[in-house]
Amino acid sequence: MPRLANIGCLATCANPVGQDDIGLIRDAALVWRDGTVRWTGPAAALPAEYEAEPARDAGGGLVIPGLVDAHTHLAFGGWRAGEFSDRIRGRGYLEIAAAGGGIASTVRATRALDEEALLARAHEFLSGMVSLGITTVEAKSGYGLDLETELRLLRVYRRLGEMGPARVVATCLAAHVVPPEWSADRAGYVRLVTERILPAVAEDGLAEFCDVFVEDSAFSADEARQICERGCELGLRPKLHVDQLSGGGGAELAASLGAVSADHLEYVSEAGIEALAAAGVVAVTLPLATLYLNQAPPPARALIDGGVAVAVASDFNPGTAPSWHLPFAMTLACTRQRMTPAEVLKGATRYAARAVGREGELGSLEPGAAADFTIIDAPDVEHWLYHLRPNACVAAAIGGETLHGIRRKA
Amino acid sequence: MPRLANIGCLATCANPVGQDDIGLIRDAALVWRDGTVRWTGPAAALPAEYEAEPARDAGGGLVIPGLVDAHTHLAFGGWRAGEFSDRIRGRGYLEIAAAGGGIASTVRATRALDEEALLARAHEFLSGMVSLGITTVEAKSGYGLDLETELRLLRVYRRLGEMGPARVVATCLAAHVVPPEWSADRAGYVRLVTERILPAVAEDGLAEFCDVFVEDSAFSADEARQICERGCELGLRPKLHVDQLSGGGGAELAASLGAVSADHLEYVSEAGIEALAAAGVVAVTLPLATLYLNQAPPPARALIDGGVAVAVASDFNPGTAPSWHLPFAMTLACTRQRMTPAEVLKGATRYAARAVGREGELGSLEPGAAADFTIIDAPDVEHWLYHLRPNACVAAAIGGETLHGIRRKA
Repeated sequence: MPRLANIGCLATCANPVGQDDIGLIRDAALVWRDGTVRWTGPAAALPAEYEAEPARDAGGGLVIPGLVDAHTHLAFGGWRAGEFSDRIRGRGYLEIAAAGGGIASTVRATRALDEEALLARAHEFLSGMVSLGITTVEAKSGYGLDLETELRLLRVYRRLGEMGPARVVATCLAAHVVPPEWSADRAGYVRLVTERILPAVAEDGLAEFCDVFVEDSAFSADEARQICERGCELGLRPKLHVDQLSGGGGAELAASLGAVSADHLEYVSEAGIEALAAAGVVAVTLPLATLYLNQAPPPARALIDGGVAVAVASDFNPGTAPSWHLPFAMTLACTRQRMTPAEVLKGATRYAARAVGREGELGSLEPGAAADFTIIDAPDVEHWLYHLRPNACVAAAIGGETLHGIRRKA
Repeated sequence: MPRLANIGCLATCANPVGQDDIGLIRDAALVWRDGTVRWTGPAAALPAEYEAEPARDAGGGLVIPGLVDAHTHLAFGGWRAGEFSDRIRGRGYLEIAAAGGGIASTVRATRALDEEALLARAHEFLSGMVSLGITTVEAKSGYGLDLETELRLLRVYRRLGEMGPARVVATCLAAHVVPPEWSADRAGYVRLVTERILPAVAEDGLAEFCDVFVEDSAFSADEARQICERGCELGLRPKLHVDQLSGGGGAELAASLGAVSADHLEYVSEAGIEALAAAGVVAVTLPLATLYLNQAPPPARALIDGGVAVAVASDFNPGTAPSWHLPFAMTLACTRQRMTPAEVLKGATRYAARAVGREGELGSLEPGAAADFTIIDAPDVEHWLYHLRPNACVAAAIGGETLHGIRRKA
């Protein structure tokens, strides 16, 4: 059976509880077969039956579960660099949106691209992410906002998942904002989502999750409830963007809807934290969006102390988080969200997998889980996230198969 | 004469004034000879005399002056990842220092390394920096804090400058902190610096600048004045670490001493800003240190509005800024210091060169300046700093000679 030897430090993330319990094993070995982990433990305890085949060498580095980016908007047209400078000069997110910028401008650019063009762009981003050690990416639609383009984006994700180089989990975010052509008939757009888009997505099996951006500038709690309930009927589990720009009881709504995750949470209330904990909703924090919008970070310590599992994701999108550098987001989660490196790693592996409905299968290295692993040029997790480099990933593998193009140090 | 053609956007940074005036030329060309820029301008205006030789192709990208990192602590022993987690868990910088951690722990690790070991480590860091498009690095001693080790660190910098791959400007920071063995005799350590270390540094021409960390935990204003005045007598121009952890009139002190730069400035006062402007002292901001210490950023907008030239540097060191990723620091300067991408570029090129006494020679692309340039995979400066990638540098050159190992996209 294939195995990885000379692992200086292995973080299995095998424990489903304990934000900072990452299952560290020093001088470890990892054995897999047919793409699935069979054994992990100290190298000195390797069962004799696994010694037959020559081992691959981890170079004494840190081995972690392949990173899971639990929140991205991977496929889109155009960029919005101008808004970056506009915000620095003092224009607000909502002011930019009201002037036709923001999400609406990406919708225009996305509708203008055909499936092949969107695929080529998203594939380039995904390849960059894999070079950093990310092996699973959640990807949202939401820049189509009409039946045809939403389905096009989700087909891109299906094809990306088939072609690789990473695993892709698709989410329908047709309820990102109300597109301009429906601004005079919000209820009409909600009907389009619930009666046309979500059924078509479900029929073709194009997504697993149904997401709604709950915000004054996007959808109300009542609209989100209608959309998520319809999604649930169709087998699409809810995820929600909540409490990002203002506190509006979004976390409580996510809990009441049985959402898999509640994402953003910069303005989550104490009651919201209690509701998330009681309902077992994963809090997906997005430090890049917080940084680019120059916000105070979400209360990660209060979430953790309140019993909520906290994930850390990139939110990669062309407006508020134009970077797919998840390890950079992880270092930001340490410095600004006051999460320890171990807590952040759990949040970008096991808890991220939980946020995309794959816990136990992805995001951990334990018997029965996929042999998705990443080798980092660092002695331990602390050193990795402390010594921020362009790319500290030496290699990554999906199902035990080494991915191409990532065997470099930086 | 060699020239670079197919430049989508050239930022010359030729104007000595105007933080946001980066001298943009679209569809530009750049001509040099014997390592020195001869001509820049629109490609359509290229004088016929320069058309003889085949041009190198910039691929339609952004071309900027080679980045100048105006504040690093490049050579040191060991790391301090444990303190990163300690700070997250709530231990303060001064508390860690009082327990023997902080700078003192790096001093122990540095003294334990010989010149070859220090050189090998610093060379690896410098190579990483060059891969990002940095062509000049200011490097401080300050982890020796005895005559022998301070000179060893500065000899490392001299050898690095000779061997490359980047230009190195050395600063003596023997006044980083009072080392433990002198804690009962501060005045004795100040005499060691002024009577032994600085004269030896000056005699061997090992540094151009004399730096002092002015802070309650380091040196007082009076001690800094003694040290800087002695440095000036010896031909070492002053630079100062000031107003980082508390506001103590550090900027005013820097101005009164005629310092080339005042660095950090998180706590600079209005009077301090006026003093810096009046004295023409460059304010070197260090967004990575601000981030790692989870501080509020320095008032960059007030500095700029007050007429101070603001540089942006990495502060690379093993404690409070364990990253040499200057472009990442530049994006942080945009998002957290509210500087526009153009202002930040000027701060990491021309104004950074001013902070190391090289303005007009380095950090700008104009006739007579060195042909140090960096090609970035981006249509313009805004897009580059907005779309944060592991490494957007495609190529870099010093004196027109392309540096090795950097011809990759990321």
